[in-house]
Amino acid sequence: MEGTVGVDIGGTRTRVGAVARGRILARRAFPTQGIAEVKDAIRAVMAEVGWARPGAIGVGAPAPMDMRGGKILGCPNLPHWNGVEVTRELGDAFACPVYLANDATSAAIGELVFGHRAHDFVYITWSTGIGGGVVSGGRVAWGATGQAGEVGHMVLDPDGPPCRCGKRGCLEAIAAGVGIARAARERLGERLSAREVVDRARRGDAGALAIVDEACRAMSQGIAILWEVLEPELIVLGGGLTGSWDFLGPKVLAAAHGLARTPVRVELTPLGDDVGLLGAAALPDHFPEEWRSG
Amino acid sequence: MEGTVGVDIGGTRTRVGAVARGRILARRAFPTQGIAEVKDAIRAVMAEVGWARPGAIGVGAPAPMDMRGGKILGCPNLPHWNGVEVTRELGDAFACPVYLANDATSAAIGELVFGHRAHDFVYITWSTGIGGGVVSGGRVAWGATGQAGEVGHMVLDPDGPPCRCGKRGCLEAIAAGVGIARAARERLGERLSAREVVDRARRGDAGALAIVDEACRAMSQGIAILWEVLEPELIVLGGGLTGSWDFLGPKVLAAAHGLARTPVRVELTPLGDDVGLLGAAALPDHFPEEWRSG
Repeated sequence: MEGTVGVDIGGTRTRVGAVARGRILARRAFPTQGIAEVKDAIRAVMAEVGWARPGAIGVGAPAPMDMRGGKILGCPNLPHWNGVEVTRELGDAFACPVYLANDATSAAIGELVFGHRAHDFVYITWSTGIGGGVVSGGRVAWGATGQAGEVGHMVLDPDGPPCRCGKRGCLEAIAAGVGIARAARERLGERLSAREVVDRARRGDAGALAIVDEACRAMSQGIAILWEVLEPELIVLGGGLTGSWDFLGPKVLAAAHGLARTPVRVELTPLGDDVGLLGAAALPDHFPEEWRSG
Repeated sequence: MEGTVGVDIGGTRTRVGAVARGRILARRAFPTQGIAEVKDAIRAVMAEVGWARPGAIGVGAPAPMDMRGGKILGCPNLPHWNGVEVTRELGDAFACPVYLANDATSAAIGELVFGHRAHDFVYITWSTGIGGGVVSGGRVAWGATGQAGEVGHMVLDPDGPPCRCGKRGCLEAIAAGVGIARAARERLGERLSAREVVDRARRGDAGALAIVDEACRAMSQGIAILWEVLEPELIVLGGGLTGSWDFLGPKVLAAAHGLARTPVRVELTPLGDDVGLLGAAALPDHFPEEWRSG
């Protein structure tokens, strides 16, 4: 049997890789479009490594989904993927089993198998949005339908800023890239990316610093809540904003220690941007038994 | 083999029962003291049902503990149990395997085995304090050392009222009996039990109603956070304050629905005050394999 193909569909970029024994043997990355582009990339990586067909394909996507049916449900952020029957389409095209899961849960599997390999941890993507995956006793906590881990939608302040999800004061609305950028628009009167706000805060701009401090305190509070509720060995962070961890990390950790009863351990994933791709490739081995078809 | 003995050590009352196939065949309940009283009660229930010795004993306690060693650690609220080697002492006395776990986690096991029997749920004790247990995929989420489920120590408001744990704004400090009673002392200038505050709120007392509404909103927020993070099938509540669920429930549910993206399902445990005792009796079957001694 060949290795597996991992597909990590992101809000902006899609990564596809041929993976065997935790090594990415060939890869493609491109701006997220639809399933046709994913099929092309799978064919390309298979040709590169000389596989006739993959042993299995694992797909992580940032969207509500029917895990049992392998289908992406209504997803305004990913119009090309709305209603796509991912496992059927890729299964027909590549004649192998295909598994579909949430992207942050896939990343948590990447951490479980190839990262810190802790048995009890929460993985958090800190990026444009905030997602997560929970691992307890060495197993993914999938939840009733596989949607568990939505740490970005913890409401921390019921009167807080509006979230894309329709609620107010979600962790994501305060601490994620979208939240930081919106705060900059509203309070600084400028259209800035989260990265630009962080860079200004670094240079001592008071307005930007206030926004970044607030984001870090919210992230701390979210981390501390997970720490108390799940007693993990550690919290693992990944995602674009962790690129500024030298600046953001000390703020997050300083606040977190006052919000949990025991010292919080936070680490960045050693897998960097590959955590989701490696996790998607490991998904076939970790997909819940009762949701496997056939 | 005989059935098992369950021991549910509460902050105020201890319950001991001889249990077989989910039925409590004999029971004792008495004000919480030390291990001598527990041994007496175990002997009494065994005599009543005619067992020579129990198949196993499960003990739930509201204290920090070393689960592997079966020992209760420093516990200011339960001075008689400070440092007691529970599994060794009861094992020596009754010549059977003994298992020790957190009381709210034990109650969650009661719910898993004898209550709603959901595979994905969070059990919350809403009482003098607030504790909890998480079940994911039909298995208890124990956490790194068995202390997971401390839902009462989620910080909801970092500037909120002081908690017994030393932090501020924990769910417990706002919504539990201790929090309600403290708010009454501070805001109404009276020493009232939580039940008395709830009764006054029921009769329309504005000050008491404000305190109860705040407690219910905090409980809603905590429930909604668990709902988003763990995607359970339902949240199960037990504990003394659920005795006023006819009054408190509508408040909790009304607020929760605005704080989670999908409708929250909350149910009271059908096991009532026996949930902890039944769970302790089922603990021997659900104790984590890697922490079993010998």
